[in-house]
Amino acid sequence: MSGQNPGNSVSTTSCWMETLVATTKTERRTATVDLLDRLAHPTDADVAAVDAWWRANNYLTVGQIYLMANPLLREPLAGEHIKPRLLGHWGTSPGLALVYAHASRLIRHTGQQMIYLAGPGHGGPTLVGAAYLEGTYTEIYPHVTMEEQGLLRLFRQFSTPGGIPSHASVQTPGSIHEGGELGYVLLHAFGAVMDNPDLIALAVVGDGEAETGPLEGSWNGVSFLNPVRDGAVLPVLHLNGAKIAGPTLLARKDPDEVRSLLTGHGYDVIEVGGDDLPGMHHRFAHALTRAWASIKAIQAAARGGDWDGTRPRWPMIVLRTPKGWTGPDVVDGVQVSGTWRSHQVPLAGMKDNEEHLRMLEDWMRSYRPEELFNVHGAPEARTLSINPEGELRMSGNPHANGGPLTVDLDLPDFRDYAVAVKAPGRDRLESTRKLGELMRDTYLRNPDRFRLFCPDETKSNRLQAVFEASDRAFAERVTEDDVAVSRDGRVMEVLSEHACHGWLEGYTLTGRHGWFATYEAFAMVSASQTVQHAKWLQEAQDLAWRMPVPSLNILLTSTAWRQDHNGFSHQGPGLIQNVITHRGTVSRVYLPPDANTLLSVADHCMRSRSRVNLVVIDKQPQLQWLTMDEAVVHCGRGAGVWAWAGTEDGRSDPDIVLACAGDVVTMETVAAANILRGRLPHFATRVVNVVNLMTLSPRTVHPNGMDDILFRELFTDHVDVVFAFHGYPGAIHQLVHGRPEPDRFHVRGFVEEGTTTTPFDMVVRNRASRYHLVIDALNAARRVPAGASELKAWCERQLLRHERYVVEHLQDMPEVRDWSLGDWAEQG
Amino acid sequence: MSGQNPGNSVSTTSCWMETLVATTKTERRTATVDLLDRLAHPTDADVAAVDAWWRANNYLTVGQIYLMANPLLREPLAGEHIKPRLLGHWGTSPGLALVYAHASRLIRHTGQQMIYLAGPGHGGPTLVGAAYLEGTYTEIYPHVTMEEQGLLRLFRQFSTPGGIPSHASVQTPGSIHEGGELGYVLLHAFGAVMDNPDLIALAVVGDGEAETGPLEGSWNGVSFLNPVRDGAVLPVLHLNGAKIAGPTLLARKDPDEVRSLLTGHGYDVIEVGGDDLPGMHHRFAHALTRAWASIKAIQAAARGGDWDGTRPRWPMIVLRTPKGWTGPDVVDGVQVSGTWRSHQVPLAGMKDNEEHLRMLEDWMRSYRPEELFNVHGAPEARTLSINPEGELRMSGNPHANGGPLTVDLDLPDFRDYAVAVKAPGRDRLESTRKLGELMRDTYLRNPDRFRLFCPDETKSNRLQAVFEASDRAFAERVTEDDVAVSRDGRVMEVLSEHACHGWLEGYTLTGRHGWFATYEAFAMVSASQTVQHAKWLQEAQDLAWRMPVPSLNILLTSTAWRQDHNGFSHQGPGLIQNVITHRGTVSRVYLPPDANTLLSVADHCMRSRSRVNLVVIDKQPQLQWLTMDEAVVHCGRGAGVWAWAGTEDGRSDPDIVLACAGDVVTMETVAAANILRGRLPHFATRVVNVVNLMTLSPRTVHPNGMDDILFRELFTDHVDVVFAFHGYPGAIHQLVHGRPEPDRFHVRGFVEEGTTTTPFDMVVRNRASRYHLVIDALNAARRVPAGASELKAWCERQLLRHERYVVEHLQDMPEVRDWSLGDWAEQG
Repeated sequence: MSGQNPGNSVSTTSCWMETLVATTKTERRTATVDLLDRLAHPTDADVAAVDAWWRANNYLTVGQIYLMANPLLREPLAGEHIKPRLLGHWGTSPGLALVYAHASRLIRHTGQQMIYLAGPGHGGPTLVGAAYLEGTYTEIYPHVTMEEQGLLRLFRQFSTPGGIPSHASVQTPGSIHEGGELGYVLLHAFGAVMDNPDLIALAVVGDGEAETGPLEGSWNGVSFLNPVRDGAVLPVLHLNGAKIAGPTLLARKDPDEVRSLLTGHGYDVIEVGGDDLPGMHHRFAHALTRAWASIKAIQAAARGGDWDGTRPRWPMIVLRTPKGWTGPDVVDGVQVSGTWRSHQVPLAGMKDNEEHLRMLEDWMRSYRPEELFNVHGAPEARTLSINPEGELRMSGNPHANGGPLTVDLDLPDFRDYAVAVKAPGRDRLESTRKLGELMRDTYLRNPDRFRLFCPDETKSNRLQAVFEASDRAFAERVTEDDVAVSRDGRVMEVLSEHACHGWLEGYTLTGRHGWFATYEAFAMVSASQTVQHAKWLQEAQDLAWRMPVPSLNILLTSTAWRQDHNGFSHQGPGLIQNVITHRGTVSRVYLPPDANTLLSVADHCMRSRSRVNLVVIDKQPQLQWLTMDEAVVHCGRGAGVWAWAGTEDGRSDPDIVLACAGDVVTMETVAAANILRGRLPHFATRVVNVVNLMTLSPRTVHPNGMDDILFRELFTDHVDVVFAFHGYPGAIHQLVHGRPEPDRFHVRGFVEEGTTTTPFDMVVRNRASRYHLVIDALNAARRVPAGASELKAWCERQLLRHERYVVEHLQDMPEVRDWSLGDWAEQG
Repeated sequence: MSGQNPGNSVSTTSCWMETLVATTKTERRTATVDLLDRLAHPTDADVAAVDAWWRANNYLTVGQIYLMANPLLREPLAGEHIKPRLLGHWGTSPGLALVYAHASRLIRHTGQQMIYLAGPGHGGPTLVGAAYLEGTYTEIYPHVTMEEQGLLRLFRQFSTPGGIPSHASVQTPGSIHEGGELGYVLLHAFGAVMDNPDLIALAVVGDGEAETGPLEGSWNGVSFLNPVRDGAVLPVLHLNGAKIAGPTLLARKDPDEVRSLLTGHGYDVIEVGGDDLPGMHHRFAHALTRAWASIKAIQAAARGGDWDGTRPRWPMIVLRTPKGWTGPDVVDGVQVSGTWRSHQVPLAGMKDNEEHLRMLEDWMRSYRPEELFNVHGAPEARTLSINPEGELRMSGNPHANGGPLTVDLDLPDFRDYAVAVKAPGRDRLESTRKLGELMRDTYLRNPDRFRLFCPDETKSNRLQAVFEASDRAFAERVTEDDVAVSRDGRVMEVLSEHACHGWLEGYTLTGRHGWFATYEAFAMVSASQTVQHAKWLQEAQDLAWRMPVPSLNILLTSTAWRQDHNGFSHQGPGLIQNVITHRGTVSRVYLPPDANTLLSVADHCMRSRSRVNLVVIDKQPQLQWLTMDEAVVHCGRGAGVWAWAGTEDGRSDPDIVLACAGDVVTMETVAAANILRGRLPHFATRVVNVVNLMTLSPRTVHPNGMDDILFRELFTDHVDVVFAFHGYPGAIHQLVHGRPEPDRFHVRGFVEEGTTTTPFDMVVRNRASRYHLVIDALNAARRVPAGASELKAWCERQLLRHERYVVEHLQDMPEVRDWSLGDWAEQG
């Protein structure tokens, strides 16, 4: 490790330049050398052009934070020009703008496809200002014109009612990354470049954000990147030293340690630091050129066949600038620039403080707006001279608006994977295995736009058929004992729910398709990402220019009910609670009870757009209920009566409705109905299965909600319903709110009654077993049939027998372990 | 960076030993040298003793995974001795056991206080076996005797019904860390040693777990540790190379990179690797001694005044052993040991496979059980000879059972911080500021057992009074611009919800008290930790030996309703959805509407034990409602009628109940009631405020649930209720399920209608504004009063006026912005 001083540092260009040149064909070498030389060593005019754009952007940022009038400072700044509430974050903005400006210059010279992801939470005004200067903003939002009135609108809309948030958001052209909840910028960047070989995702990582777990755990993206097939991520770790009110860790660690850390993550660390001008422009231009050349060299070598397969050492930049750089230095005798005090608004209380008002005006005038904007308020030509053209503008790059780029998946017919079901409830099968086969063929047909993301559990979740189509992606050393692991793999496995979720988000927001498959209990790890992505999709739906993107498909397996052996910590159907609170325009929850319904649901999810599809089904062998034809009809409706399971006479309402949603509880419900059929044949039961959970909602609440007529057809409007539910009972209680007599829904579900146990013991402990359901049905029914007491007593005895059996034999009693609908009918 | 070969490596002892010796008083130097020398260079007898314990532990692990009979192999292994379902994870276990054995030897020689945290998820049998060999298990669970019958019980209970999970769990003596959801082991370890100067938390990090974001983001704990006041964490990164079905990243990266990474995190990296015996015992003994001596040297220097204040370079160990070490090498012709194939059960299908049965028997006999256990099945003396005594046994260390160690906080009288409230709804105040003052004095009175954990937002959340008592903890470089930042600080700020949450868990599980304060929207980041901790506390309540520990107190501020300016991504009251699903023995949700109720609630939370207390209140200036005396009564009941806000005549039921829970919506509710009072004085309204959300639950569901009589007193049993709620409406719908006519509850709450807006505009968009509530009340009331239509029309006009005003002025119209109860009465 070198002891190089990180401040004001610059390295010689010879090494990296030679590498790139060496990989270039002879006839182009001279041109390459020339290009790199020009890029790395800007002329004074080049620097002046970049500086003009940078000053303009900084001016726009300050204007957005402070002004609601007088945007060009045509008159002396007065109290009435200042917004009533000062919001926004100045501190990170000038650094973000510097990176943007230089990247634009590079793109303009090289034609590089590049998108810009701003990790630092609230650097929104910089990105908005950049899109404005690039013209994209006005193209998308024509009322924000490129003259004085538009400038005023730009300023007024920032962090004000009906306007835009203070961070890079859905509304910001060029953004696929909302800087609200911190930690995911590298994940989104890596997801974006997968299968996007020509794209570079420039990802600025804030030093506050760098303290989060998900961010620290996402540097390792390079260990899963393939230089031939994937694009590149260029991280810029921006160390400006402070968070809201205190220092950041990485800015205060010894620079040697920071370098050691990032080298350990696998990067070639390029450091730039300082605050001198124009020196910083020269040094950053050099660093960025070096990084870009290094990426191109790696890719050229790999794509030209000159690659030994070892993981490349990808470049990254550590940029050290003062927080709030170019802003007020000292305010009220206290140092502000370069400290945490410039994190948000470095000057406040202007309405009552003439001195602060003058400081703000001086600050804004320090950018020399009269040079940057003409008399009409339009940016001068030189201000815009570094802008790339058209779709090369980072704010207008199509990859940052994945909808228009989205190509439908070439999907096989899911019916081809159908399980033959001769009679319901006879045979057991691992349903997810069939989904694995469907995914395998989806991989084969879509070699550049479909991936599965799974934390180390693809095989455990029975999806391993995908490995017939693709290995796991792994750029580190592979050994002979590895199976389905290679640098060419496209199945994404890393033991991080955050990474899998975040990569998939980046992948789908750039217009590609995929699944995130994980253990149900640990889906809560990335629940906040699910929530934030749902919010993104919801807001995008309000923007005509954001076209629909492939849905975020989440498959939850190894569910609570079959995590009996792993115990309580592995039992948690909580994510449903979060997804059902989201808007109906976005959220879907599917609980297919068997393989054919799963296939039908999965096909629907892969064809859908801009949804969060939560699909919950266990991976263990389970009884199969519906033929494919029946499954298609059932899933189309989302819920339906399973007439073969009940005992209705069809002439009047049943005595009880036995409803179910979720695979394990569906089996218990059918078993309960079968007990009732066998023991009390004149007791009229109706079995209703729900696949699409949101059908239970009133249609006024969710667009998938059943209309009142269908709801009554299934559940009547007065008969009691014993509802066996996969998740927490409260979810059903809240969904049926507003339906006729919701109090008649007696829900059995997971009630945190878990421990290490057996499959059947799980449902017993949660009082959702077939015996409990029979007792509940008999207790709830308004008509008490003859023989009810005897049957309840028998159920109680069965529960006692279970209790004794399971402790002695460490497994379930044969009549439940091996139960199937046919056998039972014979037994009954 | 050295190019040291990580395999079979050993370093010279001279350097570290000299450091420790140098800090030791002259008269003790010789003894220290002797001790370190003996520890670092075990004799053959020493090694044989460690090896015996290790073999015994490995034997117990295999027995737990496989056997339900014949625990001592008194007869040849037969199919009926094998469990019906083979569960558990062999791969990580022998490594965990090796570390445990050597740590025990070290403790025995040094008297070091040490606890053991096993990160690798499913290494549970090792920890259970260790507690068994140490005798702790039998002391706690007397039926698991230390002879053949007990051994059989030990084996049979593992991952079987009513038994114990396959990971280190609540039931495991000595554990404060459940190895279920991965990623938190270092966080728990650092939390445990804070203010525990004599404690070392030995934390084994699995290489699977090391891929998670929270784990990667938790190495930085050393940057917040104080060598004088805190204990030490000794991480052992156990690289055994594989996860369930594939390689781990850190095991496949170049060892130089791994070293660089960990050096970058701030550690002195000690590497041990190999599989040769007894060589590995010698090398690990040496490495562990070196690490321990290094910790003692750092602490001795710092505590002896010989410390320049720079962050020490704490030691850690990288341990490389084959996965499934000492287990079956090749099974069915395929390499198993050293590969992912030994992750779970390396041998299966024994019932039908005599060869596998023999391999299992050979494997178990390879540990020479006849040497380890006597004829009665009790461990031989030599097997136990490395066990430390009494509370020094890691399985019996009191720090791993924080309840008995818990000392009540010395709390000031929260009434002393009361806000003077002359009349309800007159004055505005930042309520959390008062809580900050209470926390400040709690810090002062409890300098060794109270901490606040907050991601960079202590000041933003208005809790900054704590800085009058303590700085932020920071072990890295501090500059003159820093305020309230020092190595002696005990306010924990790092921009990671995971770290704050995890540290607090470790802190409370070892018997100390604290708060985690965070922005409401980002509470979802650590929601999975909240869920898992609630499960831990619930299970601990079933174990008499696990005494109650201080509660996990979570303060959510910067709530959805006042994140108007930051927009949609910052608006999310979702954690309530998750906490209300947990058992009533654990979960509490409080929504204090003002400062005095907040103080009362906070006092209650800090006195409570083994709860997850979720307290939700915004940080912005807000109207104050109750005097302290009123607040105490109100919080004691959890919910009550605010008679002064309504217009009941007391003779009959009101026309409508206006209920509310949450600060912002409470203000809207009181304002709505006041409009009704002013405009329709004969319309009888009742205002009910709910502080303790769980009081709404039927008592059969939650112990805080109001009894039926009180519920009827507040809500009647038939009058419609317009309920303005802080969170998602569905939460109320599910809570009142089971109450009389739940359909009469018309809930207004956050419905994902957010954007960048103003405070009042937020409630308008979510249809929870005073004007909406008035309209709702008039629509829901069964008796339509004269003047209702006019008032509804007036409300609609007000909403239109708001819509226009806010866009023009970028702030709320004065009548809502500056509204207070007194003013309005005059206006009305």
